[in-house]
Amino acid sequence: MASKITIPEIQAILDAELPLVEVLGMQVEEVTAGTCRVRMRFKPDLIRPGGTVAGPAMMALADLAMYVVVLSLVGPVDLAVTTNLNINFLRKPGPKDMIAEGRVIKAGKRLAVVEVDLYSEGDPQMVAHVTGTYSIPPGTPDAA
Amino acid sequence: MASKITIPEIQAILDAELPLVEVLGMQVEEVTAGTCRVRMRFKPDLIRPGGTVAGPAMMALADLAMYVVVLSLVGPVDLAVTTNLNINFLRKPGPKDMIAEGRVIKAGKRLAVVEVDLYSEGDPQMVAHVTGTYSIPPGTPDAA
Amino acid sequence: MASKITIPEIQAILDAELPLVEVLGMQVEEVTAGTCRVRMRFKPDLIRPGGTVAGPAMMALADLAMYVVVLSLVGPVDLAVTTNLNINFLRKPGPKDMIAEGRVIKAGKRLAVVEVDLYSEGDPQMVAHVTGTYSIPPGTPDAA
Amino acid sequence: MASKITIPEIQAILDAELPLVEVLGMQVEEVTAGTCRVRMRFKPDLIRPGGTVAGPAMMALADLAMYVVVLSLVGPVDLAVTTNLNINFLRKPGPKDMIAEGRVIKAGKRLAVVEVDLYSEGDPQMVAHVTGTYSIPPGTPDAA
Repeated sequence: MASKITIPEIQAILDAELPLVEVLGMQVEEVTAGTCRVRMRFKPDLIRPGGTVAGPAMMALADLAMYVVVLSLVGPVDLAVTTNLNINFLRKPGPKDMIAEGRVIKAGKRLAVVEVDLYSEGDPQMVAHVTGTYSIPPGTPDAA
Repeated sequence: MASKITIPEIQAILDAELPLVEVLGMQVEEVTAGTCRVRMRFKPDLIRPGGTVAGPAMMALADLAMYVVVLSLVGPVDLAVTTNLNINFLRKPGPKDMIAEGRVIKAGKRLAVVEVDLYSEGDPQMVAHVTGTYSIPPGTPDAA
Repeated sequence: MASKITIPEIQAILDAELPLVEVLGMQVEEVTAGTCRVRMRFKPDLIRPGGTVAGPAMMALADLAMYVVVLSLVGPVDLAVTTNLNINFLRKPGPKDMIAEGRVIKAGKRLAVVEVDLYSEGDPQMVAHVTGTYSIPPGTPDAA
Repeated sequence: MASKITIPEIQAILDAELPLVEVLGMQVEEVTAGTCRVRMRFKPDLIRPGGTVAGPAMMALADLAMYVVVLSLVGPVDLAVTTNLNINFLRKPGPKDMIAEGRVIKAGKRLAVVEVDLYSEGDPQMVAHVTGTYSIPPGTPDAA
């Protein structure tokens, strides 16, 4: 199965509707049906004590990766909404770009569950691990 | 027991170390030992499809409220770190300021667990509910 | 609004369909629309190292409290299912009965979100805190 | 690195200290340093409406898998305790044995974070996904 949305189509939604993506310097790099890779550029605005990337910036990156995974399954449905997000912070990231690798673990008619691994660029150790649930609006073509 | 930190002392830490707080327009309004209220001004930068406040902005607000609750218990320890955050999004917020009410539910030697309720200003229905865990650095004066 | 189910009606569902409730010695003590109190008798079968109540027994108690809260809102719908449960263990419980206090924080058409506080009988300090989500089957009379 | 505990050593701890493991029919099948596989026999006591395995039984299985992963890293330390567990229920399991596959995603000095995938025997689709945190007692030989 192919992704139901292309990177330019996703970018158009993000540009029109999610200014925070631009503010935080996030960019979709890869999408297949049910997976994605998203990057967040390192910026001084995003640091926390210790010079490392702040937790909320990581949560924003994970949330975007979840959204992109859902779009890849259902197409350009801008009313899908996160209902739950759980994050475990594992290690201090470096002062570097962060990479989010997202993948679907359940694509149902009403709910999609997505897992996201966060990394510092160039370091194989996971920095944070996220699971989240998206609610799919009724009437959306079946993602399952 | 009184808060181990004042609002101006918190503000000084945030100004020096957490630029994202300023970027997102967040402000500490009240602190007692183990509780706080934090506000996030409504800004066009923070919206998501539908004109409402984006989820990541709410997570950033909740994370700040958790940090302030921890500071109120242990004093100005800038190396306390979030280890886990779980958020349930309950209702669409209005295009308004958001208010976070945080309170400690466990203050241990090594971990603090904090609960945060998020509201849209002027609406009594909870918009999102958060629980999270902070790791307290060894050697910190006992929060318990 | 009154509860859409009585304690005897709940007990009949539990007796017929959830043998684990009997195995673990759990009992519904109070139900109103959107709240409940459930008790788990202390039994040697439920202990963990240190002589205290095992975590999985507490999770089972919280899950039952969530289910009872959902039944109080939608009536005897035995196909409502938990989709997410998050628990923070706060303190070691005593070798005593445990009490779960559940309350709804969102009652939607498709999802209900419930919060549960767990206590050791006679001790005011919370032992564990749970939030969870239930999926409500389509066609169920509106819980909202 | 080899597991710091063998299956017979784990079994001895479980037999002595965790009667619920026997009640629920759970058994450790495989352990390496940082991973394990644990089985729960299908029993009529564990069902829920619809004839399928009850959620609390799955949570107990996941909790045991987390504990075994931690023991594999730190050796026979019976005071390690779960501090947080988050579960997403993905699909209805069959009336069959359930298998938990656990693996560590962070082994720190004070906290270990573990991920567990749950399956119905013979079905490749994940039934539930769990992440959890264990607190490691001070003075334990370093798991990292």
